[in-house]
Amino acid sequence: MSDVDQTPARRGRPGYDRDQILEIAVQVFIEQGYDATSVASLAMRLGLSKSALYHHFASKEEVLEVALEEALGGLEGVLEDAGEGSARDRLERALHGAVLVLVDKLPYVTLLLRVRGNSDVERAALDRRRAFDRQVTALVRAAQTEGSVRSDVDPSVATRLLFGMVNSIVEWYRPSGSEGAQELARDVLAVALHGLAES
Amino acid sequence: MSDVDQTPARRGRPGYDRDQILEIAVQVFIEQGYDATSVASLAMRLGLSKSALYHHFASKEEVLEVALEEALGGLEGVLEDAGEGSARDRLERALHGAVLVLVDKLPYVTLLLRVRGNSDVERAALDRRRAFDRQVTALVRAAQTEGSVRSDVDPSVATRLLFGMVNSIVEWYRPSGSEGAQELARDVLAVALHGLAES
Repeated sequence: MSDVDQTPARRGRPGYDRDQILEIAVQVFIEQGYDATSVASLAMRLGLSKSALYHHFASKEEVLEVALEEALGGLEGVLEDAGEGSARDRLERALHGAVLVLVDKLPYVTLLLRVRGNSDVERAALDRRRAFDRQVTALVRAAQTEGSVRSDVDPSVATRLLFGMVNSIVEWYRPSGSEGAQELARDVLAVALHGLAES
Repeated sequence: MSDVDQTPARRGRPGYDRDQILEIAVQVFIEQGYDATSVASLAMRLGLSKSALYHHFASKEEVLEVALEEALGGLEGVLEDAGEGSARDRLERALHGAVLVLVDKLPYVTLLLRVRGNSDVERAALDRRRAFDRQVTALVRAAQTEGSVRSDVDPSVATRLLFGMVNSIVEWYRPSGSEGAQELARDVLAVALHGLAES
């Protein structure tokens, strides 16, 4: 920007499209909490009138629903894309894919992980999270049966520990840092499958 | 209780002591959020007057401070108690101890993990969490130097993944379930050190 350009950033700001509204709204939900965010405060943050906001989304709950779909659709996709092969191979591909989804959709997954079930939209999201967990647990169990995953840890405990590691990424990973998404996914797989110990 | 005992539980309820107030207040903070909880609503939940509550704690913030001390003191203790020996031995003892602290102090650690730094007490707690993370990271680095922990993962990423796994316990572990604290600690160590793969 040239130093003679005195135009404030707000001047000439184009109208937001639906995706941009979604992105900013999710940021506000994360900062203030979904329940504590009113449509009025969302509109104010966007510099829009409430009616302009309602032109894009029918309700605050619809914004949440679309945001959670981003996260859940992405996560469910990694199981669908885990492909063929041994349970161990599919588990590894699913874990790898989940890390990439978390990094790619960081704010949406952050929001998903904070959902406590105070509305129909939130309860539906929790149901889908539980279904996802059950599918991963089934994959861990199948890998135990084929003998490729240790069988001395309960498959549902193992799944929760794995996703404890994966989900923690939303708490500490910053895309601007030194570690890229692919390297992070590699690290998660290395620790999850082979552990930290130098064997 | 005999079926002729018609006394409602509330009748004859003894005055709460400080520990009981702390325990219930932490439950309310977890349910409603610390910021959203007023002293008035705390007092109402306890069935106490505000002045009776102030007899035990000078402020809502003091309740939070004492609660966070429970969690932080416990976690810092596991590093102090990790003893002598190789970095790997100390790391294993610290991880094992951290799982036991989480299970023993589940609501207090839950509260700690939700602290976002909106007040001096919360910022001081975040500082102590960061100091704890740095000490664990130093232990991982020392174990890498002695050759007992894999050195292809950055020690601070490794620490965050380990504690992602450990901290997830507050989200899903129920003390009433089939898995006891010692078994859980054993599982965490097994996955963290040796991974899920059947070697």
